[in-house]
This record gives sequence, structure tokens and C-alpha cells, in this order.
Amino acid sequence: MSAFHLGDVQDAACTLDGVAHRTPVVTSSRLDDELGIELHLKCENLQRMGAFKFRGAYNALSRLDDDARAAGVVAFSSGNHAQAVALAARLLDIPATIVMPTDAPAIKLTATKGYGATVVPYDRRTEDRAAIARDLAEREGRTVIPPFDHPHIAAGQGTAALELLEEAPDLDVVIAPLGGGGLLSGTAVATRGMRQDTRIFGAEPAAGDDGKQSFDSGEIVTIPVPDTLADGAQTTALGELTFPIIRELVEDIVRVTDDELVAAMRSLAHTCKLVVEPTGALALAAAKTLAPSMSGAKVGVILSGGNVDLDRYAGLIARGATRAR
Amino acid sequence: MSAFHLGDVQDAACTLDGVAHRTPVVTSSRLDDELGIELHLKCENLQRMGAFKFRGAYNALSRLDDDARAAGVVAFSSGNHAQAVALAARLLDIPATIVMPTDAPAIKLTATKGYGATVVPYDRRTEDRAAIARDLAEREGRTVIPPFDHPHIAAGQGTAALELLEEAPDLDVVIAPLGGGGLLSGTAVATRGMRQDTRIFGAEPAAGDDGKQSFDSGEIVTIPVPDTLADGAQTTALGELTFPIIRELVEDIVRVTDDELVAAMRSLAHTCKLVVEPTGALALAAAKTLAPSMSGAKVGVILSGGNVDLDRYAGLIARGATRAR
Repeated sequence: MSAFHLGDVQDAACTLDGVAHRTPVVTSSRLDDELGIELHLKCENLQRMGAFKFRGAYNALSRLDDDARAAGVVAFSSGNHAQAVALAARLLDIPATIVMPTDAPAIKLTATKGYGATVVPYDRRTEDRAAIARDLAEREGRTVIPPFDHPHIAAGQGTAALELLEEAPDLDVVIAPLGGGGLLSGTAVATRGMRQDTRIFGAEPAAGDDGKQSFDSGEIVTIPVPDTLADGAQTTALGELTFPIIRELVEDIVRVTDDELVAAMRSLAHTCKLVVEPTGALALAAAKTLAPSMSGAKVGVILSGGNVDLDRYAGLIARGATRAR
Repeated sequence: MSAFHLGDVQDAACTLDGVAHRTPVVTSSRLDDELGIELHLKCENLQRMGAFKFRGAYNALSRLDDDARAAGVVAFSSGNHAQAVALAARLLDIPATIVMPTDAPAIKLTATKGYGATVVPYDRRTEDRAAIARDLAEREGRTVIPPFDHPHIAAGQGTAALELLEEAPDLDVVIAPLGGGGLLSGTAVATRGMRQDTRIFGAEPAAGDDGKQSFDSGEIVTIPVPDTLADGAQTTALGELTFPIIRELVEDIVRVTDDELVAAMRSLAHTCKLVVEPTGALALAAAKTLAPSMSGAKVGVILSGGNVDLDRYAGLIARGATRAR
């Protein structure tokens, strides 16, 4: 798997121009006062289909040749990548089959079907989704679109950071969530390509800290499927493409507990009027952890998505309220 | 009370440039598919202090002379105008006293105090807030900043529509919430000034339809304080300045039930990832009512604010879920 560079992210930005939303960068003087840093929140929860994943999927599908387009694509995903491939495939008129876990959030399952994709369910704890997808690909000649470990995917995800830096060019710090590393590696390549001095951090669930373990040990560590509210970051290992990039360009991985996630989701609803899914609040939660050690810093935070079942969301922000008393 | 014109709205836009947020205009292909219209949502819930009210307050306070600034201001408000005057006063270094109802949402009360204003509580059902404010003004030489019936206030509110039309210049329809008429009259003046053909609608709570009654009868109708979820539109009568403008430029006033408000709040959270207060969802609820009769139309909707207690918000969007089953 070959690496990718700033130029690939810029090419992806051209491909996405006029197709993906250029999402707003939101600031909040109240949150800044509270934390003692200057936050710039890149709202990928306001992206098409509700998450940054559209960027990578559309970029990857756009680069398929005519034969591959005609044969169709297959993807496996716990949710947002599924919707992203489904929507990108519909826009590009490519047949799509998505392998999704049986316990995927209903909002993500419904949306994926709504975009016209064929959904094949599997049990996340007993079956191997990659094997199912490969099997489908071989039988039907379809191209597998992996969720993160592909240069076209990761370069596409990096376009969010590119836009963030265009609007806030003098950021001292950029923080992105970490699951398999597509968004974080893309963010890191884009950020380092634009700014030599900006510090780059990843944020992952404490219950599934394979990223931090891999980062510290220098080798990709695989863990069991973690139990965390952040369903978008329940990956068990970094990718072979994403890991070396993260190890080289990222300063550290911040571990975030579920309680910290809920607190960040509440801040975003209460102060910024934004609905984010648990995974989408990872980077803000990490910013809160880092804030005391970087007083006054200009901090870019990628809010990665907003796809959360509304009842579950209501329960989480209300539960947080009870705990806070 | 003299009327105001497009030029006043444009002057206000200059005053607010670099001070107020230029809030994003959000689109959603899913909501468009659902309703059969093309929505452009002006996100004043992402405005400073969480509502459009900052625009009018800052514009009005900016136009006070030095003596008036030194003597200070007083305002009466159920919430967002209070915060708006408090924040504008802090930015302009003007002392502010706010007369607020005892049952104002805690989030609005806390924020108003947080911006450094002095808060004087009153009972909304037995006391006359205008009289209390006038009394304070006379005793201390302060200028009363009314919540809506003033040309500098209404012209300031009109800048949201101005920005909306700059981004989506070919709107067929613009819809704004209606309480006392500051936002709707400002929206109407800005919209008609920019576009001769754009249809303009107001949206008010069905339980407090003094606006619709006044609009139909041609005279300002006063009602008792209405019981509605839309606490920002619990006004009892239109203003002497705002009413004639609304009667002349607005096509009709759409009445919105509490159930429709909750459904619109849920759509905004679920599909657009935006937290809006009940009043902030009035215009989208009206758009849903109007949609069948204007298939394919480009519809601008002003989401007026997002200041709602988080527990109450969680209860509303969860309650809606229960009802929908």
C-alpha cells in the first residue's frame, strides 16, 4: 500500500469541489473562555450524509475506471462509511453492496438503504466482515472500498483539515478522532503539508486504545472489539497505510472515556447548538484534556459526524445532566 | 415610530460586519426529498449568544450617543433579547440592566448574568415589564432598548435575511418566525428590497395567534400571554412599527401547533444535526405546512435561535419519538 501526500489531498479537494459540502468552521467565545484556548470546530456533522466519510468514499469511487464502475463496489462498515459509499455510488451511478453489522445504529442502516445500496448483514462478534466482502467481490467482480486503509480514502478525508486550515491558517494544534486512522492520517498529511509547526493529535476511546498502544510500541496492536459509546471508532487495529503516517506526523494519541465523550456532546449541544454522535465528540473531549497544558493556543478540532439515533442521543445528553448534578 | 428601509438594514449589516457571526446556510437533500421543496436554512442558532437577537441589539446600542452610552441601557425580555442586549452592552462597554420574567429558561437567565448585566426579575402574569423598565429608565436616565418595536432593532434583525439572500439570491419564498414582529418586519424589508417577487411568510404559535388575527383584521389584536412551547414568541401583540410593515409585505401568517414544533425540532436534530429552541423551529414547521402547495420552490427558512435548557430539549426530542410510534 503506497503512502499519499499533500498533492493527493489537494487532488481530492478538486474532485470534491461542488459535490461535498464545504462545512462551516464554528467558534464559541463561551467555550473559549471556559477552556482557555481558541477553538475552531470543523463541522463534519454538517457534511453530506452527516459525516466526513463522504469525502473519502466519493474520492475513491471517482477514481475507478469504467469497467470497475460497471461491475460495482462492495464495502464493510459499522455505519458512516456504509452511508458514504452508498451515497457516493448513487451520485456516480455505480451499483453498491454494503456489509453491515447487525447491531449498527438504525439511523445508519436506514440511511444506507435509503441511498439505494444493497445491505448484507453480519454478526460483528462472530463473523469476519472483510472476508464476507472479499467473497462478494470475487463472486461478482466488485471492487472492495475499504473503510480507511486506502490512499484515496485517507486523502479524501484529509480535505476537511485542508478547508479548516484555509479558514484558520495559523492553527497551533489540530485534533482529529482516531478509529482505523483514515481521518487522522489524512488530517496529518494535510496539516503538515500546509504548516510545518502545527501540532497534530489523535483522539480515541479509552476502552479501545489500540491506537495509543500501537503508537507507543511502534507496532500495530490488535485488540478485541471494544465496548465504547463511540461506535464509529470501534476498530480493532490501525491500517498498514495509516499507521506509519500517524507514527511519523502525530505528536500523541489522547484517550477519551465515555463520560468525557458525553460531557463533550453536551457542551456541543448546549453551547454550540450542534448535534454530534459520540465518535464526533472525541476530538473536542481531547481538546478539553489538553487545554490546561496549551493555554491560549489556537486549536482546530474536527467534529467528525452527527449520525446518532435521536432517542439514544436524548438519553445521553439527559444522562449527562443527571450525572453532572 | 418611523418605518425603516433596505438602506437601514444595509447600514446595520455594515455595523455588524466582523462583530456578528455570518451564520452558515445549511441545505439537506434528505429534507428536500421528504418535503418536495429546496430548503435553505439560515442558522441563527449558531449566531453569537445563540440567536438572531444579537443583530438588532448590537445595531441599536451602536447608534446611541456618548451620553446615552454612559448612562446605560435597560431592556425587558423573556430571554434571547436579554442576552443579546447584555452581550452587546459588554462589547460596547455600556452598563445594562435587564428585566426578566421569573420563569425564563435557566440557560437564558444564566447567560444574561454571565455577560455581566444586572437582572431584575418580574412575574410575567401579574406585572407589566414595560412599566418596570420605564420606571428604571426614568430613575437612572437609562435608554430603554425595546425587544422588537424599534427601527434600529428591526433593521438589525433584517441582516440575517440579507445574508441569506446573498448566498441564495433566487429564493421563491422566505419564512421567518413571528413574535412581536422585529425579525419578520426586518426580514420582509430586506427581502422585498432585494427581490420584488419573493413571497414572504410569518410563522407563529397557534396558541398565540395574535399576529394572524391582526393580519386578517387589519388592526393590532392583543391576547393574553399564550401557553406555547415557543417561549420566544409568547408576545401578546405586534408592535406599532412592525405591524404595518408586516401587513404590507407579508403574504400570510402560518399557525404552528406545539406538536408541529416538536416534529420540526426532531427533523433539525435528526437530519440537519442542529439544536434549535422551539421558537427557532417555527419557520421550518411552517415550511412543512406550506410545502405541498409550493412543490419545487426554493424556500429560505430562518432558524431563529438555539437557546433551550438541555434537559428540556432532551425531553422534547424523546417525547416526539414516543408520539411518533
